[in-house]
Amino acid sequence: MNTTNSAGGSSEQTEIGKIDRDVLLFTVGKDPVLDLELAEWDCFGTAAHVTMLSRMSYSPRIFSVEERNRVVSVLAAIAESARKREFKISDADQDCHLAIERIVTERLGEIGRRIHTGRSRNDQSATAVRLYARNELLGCIGEMAQLASVLTAFGRCHHSIPMVGRTHLQPAMPSSVGVWATCYAEALLDDITLVKAAYDVTNRCPLGSAAGYGVPLPIDRDLTSRLLAFKEPVHNVMYAGNSRGKTESAVVSALCQVMLTLSRLAEDLVLFSMPEFGYFSIPKEFCTGSSIMPQKYNPDVCELIRARAARLIGLSAGTAAIIKAMPGGYNRDLQDTKELLIEAFNATRSSLRIMTRIAGGLMPVPEKLRAAFAEPGVFATDRALELVAGGMPFRDAYHQVRDHLEDLKTMDPDKAAAAKTHTGAPAGLDFDMYDARTEAASGDASKELARITQCLANLMKPVKQTS
Amino acid sequence: MNTTNSAGGSSEQTEIGKIDRDVLLFTVGKDPVLDLELAEWDCFGTAAHVTMLSRMSYSPRIFSVEERNRVVSVLAAIAESARKREFKISDADQDCHLAIERIVTERLGEIGRRIHTGRSRNDQSATAVRLYARNELLGCIGEMAQLASVLTAFGRCHHSIPMVGRTHLQPAMPSSVGVWATCYAEALLDDITLVKAAYDVTNRCPLGSAAGYGVPLPIDRDLTSRLLAFKEPVHNVMYAGNSRGKTESAVVSALCQVMLTLSRLAEDLVLFSMPEFGYFSIPKEFCTGSSIMPQKYNPDVCELIRARAARLIGLSAGTAAIIKAMPGGYNRDLQDTKELLIEAFNATRSSLRIMTRIAGGLMPVPEKLRAAFAEPGVFATDRALELVAGGMPFRDAYHQVRDHLEDLKTMDPDKAAAAKTHTGAPAGLDFDMYDARTEAASGDASKELARITQCLANLMKPVKQTS
Amino acid sequence: MNTTNSAGGSSEQTEIGKIDRDVLLFTVGKDPVLDLELAEWDCFGTAAHVTMLSRMSYSPRIFSVEERNRVVSVLAAIAESARKREFKISDADQDCHLAIERIVTERLGEIGRRIHTGRSRNDQSATAVRLYARNELLGCIGEMAQLASVLTAFGRCHHSIPMVGRTHLQPAMPSSVGVWATCYAEALLDDITLVKAAYDVTNRCPLGSAAGYGVPLPIDRDLTSRLLAFKEPVHNVMYAGNSRGKTESAVVSALCQVMLTLSRLAEDLVLFSMPEFGYFSIPKEFCTGSSIMPQKYNPDVCELIRARAARLIGLSAGTAAIIKAMPGGYNRDLQDTKELLIEAFNATRSSLRIMTRIAGGLMPVPEKLRAAFAEPGVFATDRALELVAGGMPFRDAYHQVRDHLEDLKTMDPDKAAAAKTHTGAPAGLDFDMYDARTEAASGDASKELARITQCLANLMKPVKQTS
Amino acid sequence: MNTTNSAGGSSEQTEIGKIDRDVLLFTVGKDPVLDLELAEWDCFGTAAHVTMLSRMSYSPRIFSVEERNRVVSVLAAIAESARKREFKISDADQDCHLAIERIVTERLGEIGRRIHTGRSRNDQSATAVRLYARNELLGCIGEMAQLASVLTAFGRCHHSIPMVGRTHLQPAMPSSVGVWATCYAEALLDDITLVKAAYDVTNRCPLGSAAGYGVPLPIDRDLTSRLLAFKEPVHNVMYAGNSRGKTESAVVSALCQVMLTLSRLAEDLVLFSMPEFGYFSIPKEFCTGSSIMPQKYNPDVCELIRARAARLIGLSAGTAAIIKAMPGGYNRDLQDTKELLIEAFNATRSSLRIMTRIAGGLMPVPEKLRAAFAEPGVFATDRALELVAGGMPFRDAYHQVRDHLEDLKTMDPDKAAAAKTHTGAPAGLDFDMYDARTEAASGDASKELARITQCLANLMKPVKQTS
Repeated sequence: MNTTNSAGGSSEQTEIGKIDRDVLLFTVGKDPVLDLELAEWDCFGTAAHVTMLSRMSYSPRIFSVEERNRVVSVLAAIAESARKREFKISDADQDCHLAIERIVTERLGEIGRRIHTGRSRNDQSATAVRLYARNELLGCIGEMAQLASVLTAFGRCHHSIPMVGRTHLQPAMPSSVGVWATCYAEALLDDITLVKAAYDVTNRCPLGSAAGYGVPLPIDRDLTSRLLAFKEPVHNVMYAGNSRGKTESAVVSALCQVMLTLSRLAEDLVLFSMPEFGYFSIPKEFCTGSSIMPQKYNPDVCELIRARAARLIGLSAGTAAIIKAMPGGYNRDLQDTKELLIEAFNATRSSLRIMTRIAGGLMPVPEKLRAAFAEPGVFATDRALELVAGGMPFRDAYHQVRDHLEDLKTMDPDKAAAAKTHTGAPAGLDFDMYDARTEAASGDASKELARITQCLANLMKPVKQTS
Repeated sequence: MNTTNSAGGSSEQTEIGKIDRDVLLFTVGKDPVLDLELAEWDCFGTAAHVTMLSRMSYSPRIFSVEERNRVVSVLAAIAESARKREFKISDADQDCHLAIERIVTERLGEIGRRIHTGRSRNDQSATAVRLYARNELLGCIGEMAQLASVLTAFGRCHHSIPMVGRTHLQPAMPSSVGVWATCYAEALLDDITLVKAAYDVTNRCPLGSAAGYGVPLPIDRDLTSRLLAFKEPVHNVMYAGNSRGKTESAVVSALCQVMLTLSRLAEDLVLFSMPEFGYFSIPKEFCTGSSIMPQKYNPDVCELIRARAARLIGLSAGTAAIIKAMPGGYNRDLQDTKELLIEAFNATRSSLRIMTRIAGGLMPVPEKLRAAFAEPGVFATDRALELVAGGMPFRDAYHQVRDHLEDLKTMDPDKAAAAKTHTGAPAGLDFDMYDARTEAASGDASKELARITQCLANLMKPVKQTS
Repeated sequence: MNTTNSAGGSSEQTEIGKIDRDVLLFTVGKDPVLDLELAEWDCFGTAAHVTMLSRMSYSPRIFSVEERNRVVSVLAAIAESARKREFKISDADQDCHLAIERIVTERLGEIGRRIHTGRSRNDQSATAVRLYARNELLGCIGEMAQLASVLTAFGRCHHSIPMVGRTHLQPAMPSSVGVWATCYAEALLDDITLVKAAYDVTNRCPLGSAAGYGVPLPIDRDLTSRLLAFKEPVHNVMYAGNSRGKTESAVVSALCQVMLTLSRLAEDLVLFSMPEFGYFSIPKEFCTGSSIMPQKYNPDVCELIRARAARLIGLSAGTAAIIKAMPGGYNRDLQDTKELLIEAFNATRSSLRIMTRIAGGLMPVPEKLRAAFAEPGVFATDRALELVAGGMPFRDAYHQVRDHLEDLKTMDPDKAAAAKTHTGAPAGLDFDMYDARTEAASGDASKELARITQCLANLMKPVKQTS
Repeated sequence: MNTTNSAGGSSEQTEIGKIDRDVLLFTVGKDPVLDLELAEWDCFGTAAHVTMLSRMSYSPRIFSVEERNRVVSVLAAIAESARKREFKISDADQDCHLAIERIVTERLGEIGRRIHTGRSRNDQSATAVRLYARNELLGCIGEMAQLASVLTAFGRCHHSIPMVGRTHLQPAMPSSVGVWATCYAEALLDDITLVKAAYDVTNRCPLGSAAGYGVPLPIDRDLTSRLLAFKEPVHNVMYAGNSRGKTESAVVSALCQVMLTLSRLAEDLVLFSMPEFGYFSIPKEFCTGSSIMPQKYNPDVCELIRARAARLIGLSAGTAAIIKAMPGGYNRDLQDTKELLIEAFNATRSSLRIMTRIAGGLMPVPEKLRAAFAEPGVFATDRALELVAGGMPFRDAYHQVRDHLEDLKTMDPDKAAAAKTHTGAPAGLDFDMYDARTEAASGDASKELARITQCLANLMKPVKQTS
């Protein structure tokens, strides 16, 4: 079946029958399921490779333009079925690469056997994983911007509602709902910086490294990189292989940061939706109830998001531990990074989407938020600073405040929040800046996504004879 | 559907239709798939609970003996289908607990509605997870003993073949194949100690904590514990809930230790099966070849085992991070520990089994092992010690050895290994001790497994009227 | 200096001057500081080794009894100074092993040069680390039992004070302070099981493996094991070396479990000491205040304990990642496990001690605990179960409770808690059992500690000539 | 002592005497040692704050220009002593912030008491940590570029020496020393992208958030940000606090990626410096020897680098686990992130520097590298591709190669490597590109460092009266 592997794909089996069945099952693992995520992307990678071979200045040409068109047409059909989740990978296929090659060969005969010329399965996997990750990362950035935008809108809408600012979870100083909400929006903007860096590392084309050391053919790696809308090729062929695992590790680490942000927002929602606080109400249809306690609305989603953040910590540690001290060149250990990457994307993106819906339905409960100011100590610092500002030495101010805590009861939380006007303080928030930044991030990501989608669509079109 | 949840299962939904669909999908997650592992065990837990209710000194009795028998008979049938992997959980069911309750109710009507009396879904999950983990742990111990036994047999069979002992991977001193093989057998014996401790922590019955705070009914938790062959109940009802996650974390940590042992054995096999060493030959059918390089036999299994060890590190960190600083009482975060636990068992047990097969087929290559002694430096320490033993001051011995390294070429690796006769040295290994220990571990585990299996089989039998 | 290293300590330097200074500093690392923890233990290890050599049936004898006594007398003095933290390790010494050898040689001349006969620095390190860890583990068990005991006493004293039981942090069902406190006591008892397993793995003597492959001398490893009060020797000499790192990993994992328990207790204290709850009051001298807010008492200790649990997760992952796929035999990577082990012990034991003090000073605030029952929903399940128990079908009971939630306001939390009498429920707690278990654990640990201490004291005594 | 904390530093103690001594020691922890790293940076932060206060449009002015100059002059002196490591922090001081405030107050009296006006200790810590991390990150980038540059030079110098390319550690295809060396250079360039993103996240000024919720004073946060050479302020005051821990986590994750790269390079050096390969010789003064085996040169540095990579995995997991689900606002847990950050920088930067020295002294051993091609299978893929290129169907080519493996013995590794001319292949490497990229990275970092250093030097100068 895969006798056409012409560039030393080092982990392929020539004759599966000879391999012990338990070993085969162990090594194939979950690939038939996991590779459903990659099948579409492998079609693009193969289309780029075949297109390149059809233009390679080499005689005899490995693919004529017409043959190239026939192959690409089949690949386009497979990609379409993979996108619709109709594509299946059998155990005998082992993975998406062999399944796709099998189908092309079934439909086109001997031509199909040539599509593997000058590359290896590692080469294919590395390319498909990057294409997949690139798309996921852009989707992720879009979703992060969307959540940041919803939080900013929430903050803007309710910016002047006072909210007890806490340190050590104890009431500390007057703050506002606006500060609380945009705190997490700004965290997401930082996360976007980190995810973009992972994107930059991912957005380079490994194709053409073959088994990791190149091939004695004049393949054009810059061309395949361009056809696949990558910024440029990974240069060094060995690094094209070695970067597998490394790229995944960088991506999973970045996603972990996103989940850590979500976990803190989730924690605040769990705490402040307890009846003892009741600062925010989560729409009832977003909570799970109890079969017996009609009063009970549990913030399960937020709890699960906390757990997912923990899992990302584990996925990140696991991915890093796989590649730690791995010798140079392809090692089969890398197969396991694929699952961790896919899990990380699924967990992060579903968490982002569900949190966006929750944030979109969130309502502050002003009376509860204001009631939390009943304990006057929360105003102590503000009052002391007023006295200091009026010229009183601090120690005197401190004693005066401490000895007359009850005087603070007359302080107004709304005014206290409004009195902090400097940059980023309750009355000094720049919501427009947040909107501008999230729109920029979101816009960049969707432009990049459109560019890639268009480029890949072009790749799958037939080419005229006279190329 | 689950209006029969009579003890405050805190995360159940009364009317699913009212929950946002995305939220439902997010919270249900992979439970319909994961719970296939737990379905059988939930049947036992439910059977024990219903049996206990039928004996509870309470009037009116919640279950008559005859009703109990009808319920248990249905549960036995479900357990059987789950064991055969014919049981299905629909999305509407959400998880195995609701699916089982639905089936019992479909078959027995109103009786089915009563099986949830006095407990909660958390209670059920905690019980099913422990029953599942208990069985897996015993299976795991058996497989660890089996691998240790195969390694001991390998070591005994080839004990006198000399092998270069290395430090810093550099040749250091003469050793033997016997030392190498039983080194890993002994590591597994240590791991068994750790896994057994995880077993001891697991082997207590959480059933009867309801939503984590008990019920105002005279339930008999000692009885259900006994019916389920647990050592004893978890005492404190809140701890019965809180220990979820903790138990999983202890188990996953112990499994991580097993995988770390396997990863080191795997690393040695990867290194020493390189053609530059060739000390051991792994049966060809256990290696993957290449579609192009006929000489190539890749130790993929060993590489994947290294990766699985890395994943266990991640699973262990992830599980621990989930429960870190989790507030007391059930929190939905715990749902995610189930998947990590199942993954950890699957990865560890499949690795143990495949490594046992590899070790069983492993052959030393004596000529290669002896050829590695060509570099005479490996004998330097032995020679110097001979001189010291003969009365020469060490510095003189050291200089004499260093200045006449070539003299060492005449040294015989077989003799050098045989000269180390003290406890645990090449010529001082006690293979019988290894066999005795592994047999003891294996025997204990299988006796315990038999006892549990018998006890659970008894539980599923009909009970006579006169209880 | 260490030309006396007669058994191939593979990482020793003969002439330090020849090593690049940066390389030396990098490889020595923090050993001069970290090894202060190990110096005392290395003295015991060396004393056992020298004692064994003096009894070894070998001619000429390496140490006469009189020489042995002189060496041991110097070692006893060094051990004493190390215990008093007066011992210093210079950079030139590199580590405690070389420092001790230097001192013995300075005082006794040529005799000192012989103490390294038949072993290596790895051998010494492995032994000293196990002796250190063994003592720390016993101390740790004692401290765990102490905290469990304080929590049990707290629970017993205040057992009948009602406390809202929560799930998802939302009020769920009536519980009690007794349940809350002994929940964590029972968790610690489980942790003791895990720590004991780590102890069992640690309590075996690696001494005599030399560089990991034994020596061609009739050394008596059973004797040194006995002299050092170990249960038995690690058998396989290579495993004696390979188990370094593994033992540390097992220990750090077990300590991580302890910290996870503490982190959950700490989280509850942080939450329930918020003014919105005020269930418990932490003595003011255990809180940190604020320079400005006189009302503020921050539970910093509890917050730091949460963080320390997180660090243990990292230490556990780090230790495991060091040994993952490490090739057999000593590798320098292992040096780094020492620091992680010491950090883990310091963090865990200091957390245990400070938490014991906090728990010892903790006071429940009954009026606050009872006030939390104002929200009647927390009684819903109990009421429904009462109705069911009275014969009403559950759905009817459910509807009746839901439609008359206000009726629940008359329910009495004290009675609700008292109504749960089964095993482990608020009114079914067996405090004596907790006391018995903690006393047993604590007693075992202190007996073992006394046995070891006595044995090591005997080792350091002079031996009569006629042995 | 710190009664001057005028903005609600929430974790400060007013009167230390009242705090339990054990609690104080536990909460202070290692700060007196760790803060030696931060002391210099805190002086800059304080200087910026005081300068801003002296310009704040507020009456009465809190600092006159002359007072500002006196304070800054003292701070400059403290910074200088901190840089020289002469600064000490006593236990009573607790941390660098209180130590510095104490010294300023001792020297300037009441003026010193005012420097804390409008900020908190959290504010100070967050600022000092970012200033510290920013400098470390730039230093790190410089060192990464330096190592990449040395590797590129090595690769360029020896680019044509053939080297067996491996997959699964088995010989796979002909490659070259140039490919091997620049593979790791390119990995470092990717790492620089990730470290830069961490830098971008770090390079924003948190100062002015006070206890996390701002102050009712017209402080100018843009000014302090500018004075400290930050790109801009963190906007949201709560996020200024919340980003503590998050920034550290992002930085430690990025450093972990660097260490993973180094660990793979180190692994290759450990393997290929084994006598069985001998491809590279590490200068003897960079290896540790043995006291007994004169032939032994151990690559300890490389082994320790592997271990340090493992520790970074742990540090990364630990830092993330600290902030996972931490509630909003300052929590004392964050104190522990400081130690992990400092450890991560120390481990990474020392590893980079020592690896650069090793790489600088590394020598290929051409005869050994060529001898590794004796096994002819390594040429099989090349030959088959030649045949395919000549028009032969692949299966025929495959069989012909397999059946005549001995023919491959005549193949020349130099020619085989030279035949791969496409982008990034042995004969297609663009060394100039690597040099250009590393120079650009290094240049950017040193320009940025110079800009910051100049800006901070300006800050510490006296200001003319008429500002």
